[in-house]
Amino acid sequence: MNGAESLVRTAQACGIKVCFANPGTTEMPLVAALDASAGIRPVLALFEGVCSGAADGYARMSDSPAMTLLHLGPGFANSIANFHNARRARSAVLNVIGNHAIWHLQYDAPLTSDIFSLARPVSGWVRESSSSMALARDTAEAIAAAGHYPGKVATLIVRADCQWDAADAAAAPIEVPSMPHVADAAIDRAAVMLRKHQSSVLYLGGQGLRARSLAAAARIAARTGCVLIAETFPARMERGAGYPAVARLPYFPEQALEALAPYHAMVIAGAPKPVAFFGYPDAPSVLIPQGCQVEMLAEPETGVAAALEALAEALGAPARPKILDAERPAKPSGPLSAANIGAALGALIPDHGILMDEGATTGFSAYATSIGARPHTYLSLTGGAIGQGLPCATGAAVASPDRKVIAFQADGGGMYTLQALWTNARESLDVITIICNNRAYRILQVELARAGVTEPGKYARSLTRLDEPEINWVDLARGMGVPGVRVSTADELVRELERALPERGPKLIEMMM
Amino acid sequence: MNGAESLVRTAQACGIKVCFANPGTTEMPLVAALDASAGIRPVLALFEGVCSGAADGYARMSDSPAMTLLHLGPGFANSIANFHNARRARSAVLNVIGNHAIWHLQYDAPLTSDIFSLARPVSGWVRESSSSMALARDTAEAIAAAGHYPGKVATLIVRADCQWDAADAAAAPIEVPSMPHVADAAIDRAAVMLRKHQSSVLYLGGQGLRARSLAAAARIAARTGCVLIAETFPARMERGAGYPAVARLPYFPEQALEALAPYHAMVIAGAPKPVAFFGYPDAPSVLIPQGCQVEMLAEPETGVAAALEALAEALGAPARPKILDAERPAKPSGPLSAANIGAALGALIPDHGILMDEGATTGFSAYATSIGARPHTYLSLTGGAIGQGLPCATGAAVASPDRKVIAFQADGGGMYTLQALWTNARESLDVITIICNNRAYRILQVELARAGVTEPGKYARSLTRLDEPEINWVDLARGMGVPGVRVSTADELVRELERALPERGPKLIEMMM
Repeated sequence: MNGAESLVRTAQACGIKVCFANPGTTEMPLVAALDASAGIRPVLALFEGVCSGAADGYARMSDSPAMTLLHLGPGFANSIANFHNARRARSAVLNVIGNHAIWHLQYDAPLTSDIFSLARPVSGWVRESSSSMALARDTAEAIAAAGHYPGKVATLIVRADCQWDAADAAAAPIEVPSMPHVADAAIDRAAVMLRKHQSSVLYLGGQGLRARSLAAAARIAARTGCVLIAETFPARMERGAGYPAVARLPYFPEQALEALAPYHAMVIAGAPKPVAFFGYPDAPSVLIPQGCQVEMLAEPETGVAAALEALAEALGAPARPKILDAERPAKPSGPLSAANIGAALGALIPDHGILMDEGATTGFSAYATSIGARPHTYLSLTGGAIGQGLPCATGAAVASPDRKVIAFQADGGGMYTLQALWTNARESLDVITIICNNRAYRILQVELARAGVTEPGKYARSLTRLDEPEINWVDLARGMGVPGVRVSTADELVRELERALPERGPKLIEMMM
Repeated sequence: MNGAESLVRTAQACGIKVCFANPGTTEMPLVAALDASAGIRPVLALFEGVCSGAADGYARMSDSPAMTLLHLGPGFANSIANFHNARRARSAVLNVIGNHAIWHLQYDAPLTSDIFSLARPVSGWVRESSSSMALARDTAEAIAAAGHYPGKVATLIVRADCQWDAADAAAAPIEVPSMPHVADAAIDRAAVMLRKHQSSVLYLGGQGLRARSLAAAARIAARTGCVLIAETFPARMERGAGYPAVARLPYFPEQALEALAPYHAMVIAGAPKPVAFFGYPDAPSVLIPQGCQVEMLAEPETGVAAALEALAEALGAPARPKILDAERPAKPSGPLSAANIGAALGALIPDHGILMDEGATTGFSAYATSIGARPHTYLSLTGGAIGQGLPCATGAAVASPDRKVIAFQADGGGMYTLQALWTNARESLDVITIICNNRAYRILQVELARAGVTEPGKYARSLTRLDEPEINWVDLARGMGVPGVRVSTADELVRELERALPERGPKLIEMMM
């Protein structure tokens, strides 16, 4: 057994099933080892940002560590933006990066770079293996670090000589430390606060938006009358019929503060304190209204679901409160407005569908209008690095082959990692990609206006518009083996969604807005 | 004047003419400032890797600093791979990255990251401005650092508050220190060596492959009989009729050592000592045959052209040696072999054309068969980070609007940064993109065989093949506004090249190999 085989066999023993890969010369022994052990399925992506985004989506849906295999510093660098999103999503990923053989590093060959410096900002754990003999143990430790609840990116840098030199054996899995429990005192304080204030909000994020947590949150809301509000960009959230209605905190700080203004108390579970996405002159960074009391029930790294259940018990909440489902929207007709698009999604998302929302300006509206949909899983752009939606949908589909995935994607971000469509075609993934083609970085046009530029000059216009030439997503999709169609009205969108949903395999619908 | 305006006006005063940009919210004041000063032309790319690759190409062709404008850590991260190539090309780039306002950084908002750690590995100079008042001076210093011969990437991190707060004025350009001269002793030693050894090689790289250096090299070769060999991946090289024939050092170490085996002495000018691209078991890293004496005439950071001219003088070389031009190849006919493709390029490259070669396995052969072409400029993939060719051609075309650019591109690398085609269309750039569609990472198939995997397993095959589905580059190009055509024979390639060359504007030719 060589080092590469010891790595692959250890990863397999630790439960790794899929590896999103774009390897190069320095990773060839690992490629051969994947064939030799045959227990980990490699999924090729034609750009590393697709690998990291797919790993994130896979980890979110499978709740087990994903794996990536990337080529040296520059290949890994292409994956950083989506690892940034994965870090914000607290996704568990074993990220393996090859490196030059030890004697070759000193010569500063063309692909040599400081991989550590590049990896640290997105990795909760980084190590370079010192020898082929250490590789199995390092792999087991990396996977344990990645799986440390709720999850992180663990980067293992593996020199070529460590891959091809001899190794002893695979290592056994290392037990992951159990998640920290929330102290009784925090639960008591939250209970006191919710009992005292008539007008209160339970602010949920991270694991607080999973099914078990939401069931407890519904009990708490039924008992206290508190409203449920989610962090603006949740990694994963269950919603639709049978789940309590949860609004998302609005994106812009003044809107967020307005949404929170009625509440005198806020209990937080699974999220950090709400802060603005960007700092603006004359706008606060912390999105808590003056005079609103705050109690941190459960940090994202603690047992959020158990804490919410304990809080429900402490409050004497009913065991099975009646949840009033919002009405499923009717199929819309008319222009392709954000509200109509949201209604189409709300009307047609199938049971247990997965909706990846990088719809940007269109997505914000669509969320609200789809609240009465069939029960489904909602994924969003956690770290603000656009280009996450298509790859994350790819990874979600690999993790959940029996569930329909809808990638709801703004055109600007879609262009960052459009190569994901090719992987959808190669793997026959059941993903319907819906492109919001508004031919603009619309959010930046809004931001320009906020910055006082009400009549943008020639250059500001050119930097925020995606026309001249217009992009044709049906052509792009066809070029990568994905059949597509253009729609210009809500009626056409409904028709094409109804046509695509019963079929399996990748499709693309381009909405000309 | 605010800080953003002071930055833009300073950059303009320092000679910056073009900014390859993909800004976001934290860069909006800089976008407004570009409009206000109107002296720097922004060029939008739909992915940051296109910005950095285009800046590299622009700097190589204009010999003046390019500028990029990128969005925070994750946006910048997408540009790192091509900045890695730019660093290896010693290209001068002012790289401006926005950041959160100072009071907002502490809240770890979603897009917050360690920009310094990400930027350092590709930047020869990094600074975060401390205030709006410091921004003009920081900009001038950054541009001076970028322009420090032969060039580097200078990264200036500019918080949003530094952009919108008040500033005094633009700063004046800072004089760049003159390049270090090569010591007389080194010239004498090289002259002694070349006189002593009948069989010697002048190994050229960096500035040693520009017109002035090559004229001196031709004189030295005429006097001493030495052969001229270029580093494997030159940033920029003049070649074709009127220039001395210069072979490229082969890629694989055993081939490189075989090519160098006949020579007992090597004088190096403008390049580091030749080293292998990768380290292999049982292969040396340093590509200098045993017993071959080496003299470093001029490091890449010194006055290479002047050193070569001084060496020619010291040797008493003829002032204008007769250069025997290789014969221009005939237009080929028959299958799309690498030799035929090289012949087509060699026969048809127009006078003063620019050939960007990321042809990978096809490019190696095409170089040799196009040696008798009309005089043209040759650019190559300096740092090994694939996905540089299309953006670098974009930037070269922006820098040289009167010259025809040919982007000779392997399919694997092309998929990394295909968004460059959209910028070619938007800016009506005169670029003919030629795709080598062999539906494989062919170089990795070769590397697998070198690693002893002569019958690749299912997974190794799937990770090195780009079929299932096949990519259609004509569809991809059309989707981004670039007209394209497929060819399957050398005759068709010649016909389509002859059709495209007299026209202006972007075109794509997909070679089905």
